Amino acid sequence: MVFSPGEPATGNRTEMCRYIALEGIDGAGKTSIQAALRERLESVGIEVVAVREPGGTLLGESLRRVLLDGPPVSPWAEALMFAADRAQLMADVVRPALERGACVVSDRSVYSSLAYQGAGRALGIDRVRRINEPGLAGRWPDLVILLAVSTRTGLARQRQADRIGSSGHALLSTVAEAFDTLARQNPDRFVVVDAERPRSLVVEDVWEAVGL
Amino acid sequence: MVFSPGEPATGNRTEMCRYIALEGIDGAGKTSIQAALRERLESVGIEVVAVREPGGTLLGESLRRVLLDGPPVSPWAEALMFAADRAQLMADVVRPALERGACVVSDRSVYSSLAYQGAGRALGIDRVRRINEPGLAGRWPDLVILLAVSTRTGLARQRQADRIGSSGHALLSTVAEAFDTLARQNPDRFVVVDAERPRSLVVEDVWEAVGL
Repeated sequence: MVFSPGEPATGNRTEMCRYIALEGIDGAGKTSIQAALRERLESVGIEVVAVREPGGTLLGESLRRVLLDGPPVSPWAEALMFAADRAQLMADVVRPALERGACVVSDRSVYSSLAYQGAGRALGIDRVRRINEPGLAGRWPDLVILLAVSTRTGLARQRQADRIGSSGHALLSTVAEAFDTLARQNPDRFVVVDAERPRSLVVEDVWEAVGL
Repeated sequence: MVFSPGEPATGNRTEMCRYIALEGIDGAGKTSIQAALRERLESVGIEVVAVREPGGTLLGESLRRVLLDGPPVSPWAEALMFAADRAQLMADVVRPALERGACVVSDRSVYSSLAYQGAGRALGIDRVRRINEPGLAGRWPDLVILLAVSTRTGLARQRQADRIGSSGHALLSTVAEAFDTLARQNPDRFVVVDAERPRSLVVEDVWEAVGL
């Protein structure tokens, strides 16, 4: 099952294609797969709005700069800034796009906060979920594609040396475990794709998960 | 009663002087009274750490610039950014100062978020309280001095034309009512001071509220 309860597939393509999040540890290939998925959706005539977290709004890009390259940030301040960025993205971009029938493909989502801040920074997944709920106003991703790679692969593929991206092996292992747990707890929403394989095979599985 | 339950006055000055917040609508005179209170506390040999919200840390000053002069911010993003700023200030400045026995005098506090975002922006006081609780980790102000002025006086005194400070009359009325309600609900923590009067009289009442 791809869609969450209450969001049944209808056979209508624009209805089926809603809010899709690509998740995984740093180096899983989210950005590259996002580009491929966008191209494929557009090739069948679907409007795609591609976003990334943090970022994607004027406010979000300001926050992204502060988060990735700014002064040291305490764990709760970091979690709250990600939630702020997400609230703005939801209000300005995601909700309007979904309302006009476009498909939103997001590089990361609230699940990254649950995994990185909730588990990785040990703030608690439920507590991080609670600070995110008001800004989401019920609009969680319909489909989460978890691009699964080993931490070894993730670390080897990491190019950005920013604070979030340069997470060490121990943190990435904790985050990867949290993603696995979230996927098991939400089988109707998550599809896990083995992203150790060549990109073309990963894209095929992602396309199948989208179900068009 | 000045101190909250569980924070009894002990007669020891550094014990009594803890985390003091100055609150009120824009133009209530918080910044000016903060300077006077700081001077008076220092004149009796107490170390004072004066902070303001938003701001007071490297992160906070970055967020302050974004909040006051940056791109448009949705209500929840705004509330979350204030909470992030506050979490950082708590971790970096307020908690360390209190732990070494200094007195913290803050120009605004979490109660400003409850009044401005919770009531003024209609997000709900309880919902705004919940996003702030993790970052405060139980460390709410011991004493809140509410500088009470009419919205007419507040508007007349406003000098800053930033987004927060240039709130209109209707918003300020809502915020002022919320502050009054919060004061009534927390009589052990709040002292309301009539700040329509000359500064010297206000300072005397504030000094009496501090109870030294």
